[in-house]
Amino acid sequence: MTRHRLTIEYDGSRYTGWQRQANGRSIQQALEEAIARLDPSAPHVAGAGRTDAGVHARGQVAHVDLRREWPGWRLCAAINAHLTGERIAVVEAAPAAADFDARRSAIARHYRYVVVNRRAPLVFESGLAWRVGKTLDVAAMREAAEVLIGRHDFSTFRDAQCQANSPMRTLDYFAVTREGEAVWFGVGARSFLHRQVRSMVGSLVEVGLRKWSFADFRAAFEAADRSRCGPVAPPDGLFLLRVDYPEK
Amino acid sequence: MTRHRLTIEYDGSRYTGWQRQANGRSIQQALEEAIARLDPSAPHVAGAGRTDAGVHARGQVAHVDLRREWPGWRLCAAINAHLTGERIAVVEAAPAAADFDARRSAIARHYRYVVVNRRAPLVFESGLAWRVGKTLDVAAMREAAEVLIGRHDFSTFRDAQCQANSPMRTLDYFAVTREGEAVWFGVGARSFLHRQVRSMVGSLVEVGLRKWSFADFRAAFEAADRSRCGPVAPPDGLFLLRVDYPEK
Repeated sequence: MTRHRLTIEYDGSRYTGWQRQANGRSIQQALEEAIARLDPSAPHVAGAGRTDAGVHARGQVAHVDLRREWPGWRLCAAINAHLTGERIAVVEAAPAAADFDARRSAIARHYRYVVVNRRAPLVFESGLAWRVGKTLDVAAMREAAEVLIGRHDFSTFRDAQCQANSPMRTLDYFAVTREGEAVWFGVGARSFLHRQVRSMVGSLVEVGLRKWSFADFRAAFEAADRSRCGPVAPPDGLFLLRVDYPEK
Repeated sequence: MTRHRLTIEYDGSRYTGWQRQANGRSIQQALEEAIARLDPSAPHVAGAGRTDAGVHARGQVAHVDLRREWPGWRLCAAINAHLTGERIAVVEAAPAAADFDARRSAIARHYRYVVVNRRAPLVFESGLAWRVGKTLDVAAMREAAEVLIGRHDFSTFRDAQCQANSPMRTLDYFAVTREGEAVWFGVGARSFLHRQVRSMVGSLVEVGLRKWSFADFRAAFEAADRSRCGPVAPPDGLFLLRVDYPEK
């Protein structure tokens, strides 16, 4: 068997999330079905991050073991040919080292959360952004986001279902930028807790709407208490942009 | 009657184009139906540009005469409430001078054409960009596009159905930029000939693919002969971004 690495783009609004589930179609299932048509060993596809229902990816990474070694571009084209009608595409593929593990080998994950700050309903961004009608104070959100950078206890921004051993995580950066009516939150870390990005963004939006002061935000974060989290942002605006691995 | 100005966003892939037609639903029709539910005079909506089937708008402008004067934000909200299920939204509205004419008063129109330059099928940009699989030479396309700037005879890039009196037009700018796998063509002019942007982009892509040299492109343009046009780019990638009017 030869291990292969895949980079995958998907519109999560049509799926129950990355991971196979009893109640509906997952991205993992769609990919495994497509790959099974190329390789009779019916291979398992293991992803770097288990994105929730409705969350999107521009650069999810997965590994899969195939009976023979495929040139990258041929594997891409062959899988995509069996994904017609899906909102999923393999954008890159390559043979990988036998010990490459999409989840365990990752050294950084990069997410973007997209808010469209306007009153009118969304057309192009429908399902692909969170529409916030009232004007957001981007400078205030940026100031609050800076508090999160570095190594901290993120219990406030951790879903009750989170199975990680520790609530400690290290954020490498957290950028908040406006471009016209779009407000982008860009955040990177080695790994994240369950629903951490949506929890952080939801609470930052409370600051942007001036419902929370900077002091309110910092106090909620430092309390390390889930009950102090603001409303969790909807999945629509979240994109897994990229996963990094050590250079060979 | 009070004239109102509307700024409209739409996903053209679901419609037969801006203008009312016998064979299918147009954007104009969807808007007129929505507005008729607010104003029993069943008003006519006149647009700045008649975008073709499949062409999108971020900032189409239209005017409409209503029985009473509406505050802009209320008119927006009221029309959008009757556009549920459509891929159309009114993003701005305001009362306008009685002699404001969305088409005749316009002093500049700005279009963007989006190419996604990759082999993998499109996910997020499906229907919203032209996928070109082979690598485009952006510098070569930029050099060729510069030939088009200024006042010229655009017969080569004019659809046979075009009803304008003259093939002369003045392009104010024509930018070609790459951002990752996206290649954007940005072009502005007081007005355009029918299918001019898609004809120009289609021919520039011949240059980008190195099927045409710079000299081939210039010769085709200078011939002022429709039969010399390259393949017309598909409507999917074209967005009417903005229409400008004189300051009051």
